[in-house]
Amino acid sequence: MLKKDESIAKRNSRAIRADIRAGRIAHQTSGMAAGFAQGNLVILPKFWAADFLRFCQANPKPCPLLAVGKPGDPGLPSLGAGIDIRLDVPSYRIFREGRLVEETPDITAHWRPDFVSFVIGCSFSFEWALQNAGIAVRHIDLGRNVPMFRTNIDCLPAGRFSGKLVVSMRPMKPLAAIRAIEITSRMPQVHGAPVHFGDPSAIGIEDLARPDYGDAVPVHEGEIPLFWACGVTPQVALAEAKPPIAITHSPGCMLITDIREEDLLNGRFQFEPASV
Amino acid sequence: MLKKDESIAKRNSRAIRADIRAGRIAHQTSGMAAGFAQGNLVILPKFWAADFLRFCQANPKPCPLLAVGKPGDPGLPSLGAGIDIRLDVPSYRIFREGRLVEETPDITAHWRPDFVSFVIGCSFSFEWALQNAGIAVRHIDLGRNVPMFRTNIDCLPAGRFSGKLVVSMRPMKPLAAIRAIEITSRMPQVHGAPVHFGDPSAIGIEDLARPDYGDAVPVHEGEIPLFWACGVTPQVALAEAKPPIAITHSPGCMLITDIREEDLLNGRFQFEPASV
Repeated sequence: MLKKDESIAKRNSRAIRADIRAGRIAHQTSGMAAGFAQGNLVILPKFWAADFLRFCQANPKPCPLLAVGKPGDPGLPSLGAGIDIRLDVPSYRIFREGRLVEETPDITAHWRPDFVSFVIGCSFSFEWALQNAGIAVRHIDLGRNVPMFRTNIDCLPAGRFSGKLVVSMRPMKPLAAIRAIEITSRMPQVHGAPVHFGDPSAIGIEDLARPDYGDAVPVHEGEIPLFWACGVTPQVALAEAKPPIAITHSPGCMLITDIREEDLLNGRFQFEPASV
Repeated sequence: MLKKDESIAKRNSRAIRADIRAGRIAHQTSGMAAGFAQGNLVILPKFWAADFLRFCQANPKPCPLLAVGKPGDPGLPSLGAGIDIRLDVPSYRIFREGRLVEETPDITAHWRPDFVSFVIGCSFSFEWALQNAGIAVRHIDLGRNVPMFRTNIDCLPAGRFSGKLVVSMRPMKPLAAIRAIEITSRMPQVHGAPVHFGDPSAIGIEDLARPDYGDAVPVHEGEIPLFWACGVTPQVALAEAKPPIAITHSPGCMLITDIREEDLLNGRFQFEPASV
């Protein structure tokens, strides 16, 4: 089994996907294939997929779509030649009626001709851009998961999908915060600019020291908390909608795409939705 | 004499400049030729101009150059066909050794073959973009001048030019502030993104109710003050450097250019410096 290390950061997305498909990587993908975007995965039957697509399009900050597959087709050619979404994620979670029933490295046996794959942009990409710009990201420096909070902001509902917006928090001084807003506003495909900064109670967050998901990080004197829409939002909506079957990646075990994060920053990656 | 009114907002930059040149407009230009960028003017002898150009290039946020003229040439073709900088600004101020000695609508008699014109971007352009995006600008809504403050931040000196950064302040709620940062970061030729937000004392401002220039505006509950680099900065540096002669526009009496503010927002206006 390969472990996350320097060499794995330097290898490209295709090489890492080949190792994942061969079962040589079955753990979380953070730090792998540096410079290539990773994506959150949601797979739903076509009957549910149309509402979920509308939900994502109505709520692009928490659910920025990088790609939508054709029904029954495990390929996602706009994200990488040869991707087979049944094999190319290190670990999958299978939910029935909203309940986790199985965790598996291969969903070939579960695949159905009506399955539609959704790949949603991930904050790893904008954290890459922030760090490239010399902006420290607290939870990364502390080796923790990002702190995430359920807000009092309602997503726009679509069919059976609805729920509160979940945000991730990164504390910064004002000048770094301004730069971070500049940079992330140029990356709408990976959550874009923050949705709020400053007073947490203005969006229904009671205590920054007690995140609903992930780990707490300190906010130092002179720093302001910045809140970005978070990819956990669609997962919460999914859990509440309780479709008969849904498949997602296991936490941190993302799809590694051939999209260069630099292309997300410079607007050169164009999403073209396939018909659902 | 023409007055500022609806019809003057709708007329284009060339028509307004023709009226200014003919002496039919001799007052401030705010609101005129809507959608066309206005610029701050500084004219210096060539001996001083090289240092001033370096000062502007070292401090692009307070001194974003839209154009630099050729020595002795009153034309600024990149800003508008037929511009004669000796005639096309409603009112000029002439400074000797840093002291205001004359205010005049025509500097033809003062023009010298070694004079170099600098046109510096103006916050009118980004306020236009903010309002187009539905973001209220407090001082405009109140019919006041923007509040401006001298900070404790040193500009990078260049030759005899140095001084503290002057900022303008606009209060906003967090979501509008994020949008305003996004929008102004795309307009580096008109001061770009804010240099600070939040605690005024962090940049040496003691009391928001007592601006050093312009008028105070209220900051309401839930709002954050945002601070942008201000075009008064080069004027302060100029006053402190005390060149034997310098000519500027009179406050609010700007050069109206043919640059579309939309082109500043979309990065289609490219500054090409002439040799000084």
